[in-house]
Amino acid sequence: MDATEYVAGASNAVTIRLKLENRPGMLARALAAIGEMGGNVGAIDIVRVEQGRLIRDVTIYTSDPNQVKEITKGLKKLDGIDVAHVTDRTFSLHQGGKLDVKSKIPIETRAQLSMAYTPGVARVCLAIHEQPDLAHRFTLKSNTVAVVTDGTAVLGLGDIGPEAAMPVMEGKAQLFKEFGGLNAFPLCLATKDVDEIVLIVKAVAPGFGGINLEDISAPRCFEIEERLKNELDIPVFHDDQHGTAVVATAALINALKIVGKNPADLKVVVVGVGAAGTATTRMLLDLGVKNIIGFDREGALSRRRTDLDVARRAYAEMTNPDDVTGDLQTHIAGADVFIGLAGPNILSVEDVKRMARDPIVFAMANPDPEIRPEDAYPHVAVMATGRTDYPNQINNVLCFPGIFKGALDCRASDINEAMKMAAARAIADSIDDDARSPEYIIPSVFDKSVVRRVADAVRRAAIETGVARLK
Amino acid sequence: MDATEYVAGASNAVTIRLKLENRPGMLARALAAIGEMGGNVGAIDIVRVEQGRLIRDVTIYTSDPNQVKEITKGLKKLDGIDVAHVTDRTFSLHQGGKLDVKSKIPIETRAQLSMAYTPGVARVCLAIHEQPDLAHRFTLKSNTVAVVTDGTAVLGLGDIGPEAAMPVMEGKAQLFKEFGGLNAFPLCLATKDVDEIVLIVKAVAPGFGGINLEDISAPRCFEIEERLKNELDIPVFHDDQHGTAVVATAALINALKIVGKNPADLKVVVVGVGAAGTATTRMLLDLGVKNIIGFDREGALSRRRTDLDVARRAYAEMTNPDDVTGDLQTHIAGADVFIGLAGPNILSVEDVKRMARDPIVFAMANPDPEIRPEDAYPHVAVMATGRTDYPNQINNVLCFPGIFKGALDCRASDINEAMKMAAARAIADSIDDDARSPEYIIPSVFDKSVVRRVADAVRRAAIETGVARLK
Repeated sequence: MDATEYVAGASNAVTIRLKLENRPGMLARALAAIGEMGGNVGAIDIVRVEQGRLIRDVTIYTSDPNQVKEITKGLKKLDGIDVAHVTDRTFSLHQGGKLDVKSKIPIETRAQLSMAYTPGVARVCLAIHEQPDLAHRFTLKSNTVAVVTDGTAVLGLGDIGPEAAMPVMEGKAQLFKEFGGLNAFPLCLATKDVDEIVLIVKAVAPGFGGINLEDISAPRCFEIEERLKNELDIPVFHDDQHGTAVVATAALINALKIVGKNPADLKVVVVGVGAAGTATTRMLLDLGVKNIIGFDREGALSRRRTDLDVARRAYAEMTNPDDVTGDLQTHIAGADVFIGLAGPNILSVEDVKRMARDPIVFAMANPDPEIRPEDAYPHVAVMATGRTDYPNQINNVLCFPGIFKGALDCRASDINEAMKMAAARAIADSIDDDARSPEYIIPSVFDKSVVRRVADAVRRAAIETGVARLK
Repeated sequence: MDATEYVAGASNAVTIRLKLENRPGMLARALAAIGEMGGNVGAIDIVRVEQGRLIRDVTIYTSDPNQVKEITKGLKKLDGIDVAHVTDRTFSLHQGGKLDVKSKIPIETRAQLSMAYTPGVARVCLAIHEQPDLAHRFTLKSNTVAVVTDGTAVLGLGDIGPEAAMPVMEGKAQLFKEFGGLNAFPLCLATKDVDEIVLIVKAVAPGFGGINLEDISAPRCFEIEERLKNELDIPVFHDDQHGTAVVATAALINALKIVGKNPADLKVVVVGVGAAGTATTRMLLDLGVKNIIGFDREGALSRRRTDLDVARRAYAEMTNPDDVTGDLQTHIAGADVFIGLAGPNILSVEDVKRMARDPIVFAMANPDPEIRPEDAYPHVAVMATGRTDYPNQINNVLCFPGIFKGALDCRASDINEAMKMAAARAIADSIDDDARSPEYIIPSVFDKSVVRRVADAVRRAAIETGVARLK
């Protein structure tokens, strides 16, 4: 088991509590059996001795829930070994939710109570009533983001509903605090109606400094974001679109340094023109790329096509300068950059071989990229994926904590194009020239300096573009 | 300055940073000046020595913000003393909001990230998607309450709007955690429309285990609560109504033990028939009181009156058995209990003298009770107020943390009448027979055992009445 497998398996870890007869060789027998059935043993703990039996917890990493059942069944058959229970570590960690909403101060005396609550709180309320922008100083609005979803496009799981979306949104809120130092709170809405979602987010906005839209399916996500951006005076940011766009742009900036090409000279093909693909395309245009061709299942998005919805028509209008039609296999020829946000097995090794010299491939579909990295590596100059277990992970965690922190720190009314590009450049610049390599164009999500760099750059861009209300 | 004054003044504490020339007698001079100008000096801290000057923080308790200005001006006139700055302790404590939303686990390794977020979180999402009631186990729904307001009836301040309501709602959320161990999060809504508020609360409900409505003005609060109770399968509780009703009922239960009277034999007058007055009346009827007369500004609520709105008509229907009309001064004669939820100077000493033997007076208007306790004490058997600085404070904090804890612990679908009465009896019973006295009919809000007693009683009542989904 190497480190990569360990990581891939951690989220499938189970802890099996064994009751072993207290005589030599029993643990070894259990472990041998687990190994024979394909289980990777991690930690082994002793719990207690009980009526001549030794109670032990054995943690096993697996890639498949059925394997756990097999192992449990196999262990039960062994003489002198009982299985007391099996605990799934990921589920244990979700028990009772993953967030804690705490008071920042203790409330143990009347004096504390009288300042945090009545009667003292009334003076703060009145001050805000008289001067509303004080809400940005004396309430959660100063440092809190709403994570809003309707549960229609959760991870790769699709429309699983608001209750089932909660673990993801709680996780997102954890990342906001752990990486960005911001409060975030999930609001999982039991409605898919665009008007209702807009109404609800506008109504809850007084208590928040920013709105992070998450996992809302296209094309509704476009309208919801656009309307909220127009109608609210706090930043609204659909992370699936712009988070991916910012990090992919950062990755491309560094990849271009490696291959020595300029944005204006590139031919870029984008496969998958949903929320993330469209936003990424817009940022690449902003970066100076001239020739981008988008593809859906029917082929290149051309202004000549008559089957396009409003969003795809707009995409065709802003891209495809030669207005070509046809499939990916035709147009991959001579492409400098492939950007995939679609699904597995879309790009073949033969396709990659027909790209321009030093091809750049960002195969970001999760969990299965558009081309297996192992297959692509011999033929590409730079490769990135959406996965943790390959180099160069395009991960939104690099973007959203810093971008919101920068925006909230200067009370920005918006997260605009300049702020997003500043974030992308800050992420790219966080890798020094001498450290940059084809396998290291994107920093680690655990590099805490990235958030600070992004926040600083975003705040400066907000001030320069006039959306900062605190200079 | 006695302890009571200290408490009353704590929420008006300011800290004045003084720069004193470093020679004997300077501090004494400053303190003497503060005392002469009527300031009560609390803590004195030394901050540092700087260029031959001593920097000290002096905390002063005042009853009046203007007094602070006077004192500051006075100090500045003194030779050898400078005022560096003045900090308002209550505002300082509100800086950046009063809540912290934190991850319950650290996210410092890829293994942790892969369990709390992708890819591990997907298994939890799918489990909830397949079996929705797992949301009560593996998400915030298990232990989190939404504190919802539209900012229309905040404390005694009235319709100050959602932003200005935030400090109160954040305070409420602090109390939920500090007293009940529950998460709570404020949602301050920028709408006063009943249909919109109902729509919004229903839409956000998937992420919450309960809804605490707060500071919504009557009569809209009645309709909002009723509709949400009917349409949601989690508890909905308007604390202004029922929290007050539960604690007032608890207080009356113990007051009746002191004067040796039975609910069925009482004549009760209720002045102020808004949200809290109406809910309290309903609970007293439940307790077995037969003769209750409510009063608004026009007099007794009688079925003969033609000027009553729907809510007041309903009130008249369920009370006033003899259907009397006329003013409070007429009907206070022979009353055993006065319950005031109106405003100052409504009850006179002469009125109290005309009540039945051993009168019970709950004068709960805040900050100024219906009669000054000092004036009432010689003539009453038991007196309670809404204030911290007199004995027997009717404080909702005694109720809502425990009532929601009991309800969420058994996944109750509702907080019903039986659960509220169980809470009232648990609060009353938390004072032992030998400890009970006219000045001690209600436990301290800092008595941590009360929450546990209330939660246990509420959970039992939920199970008995069939609204508990976890036995």
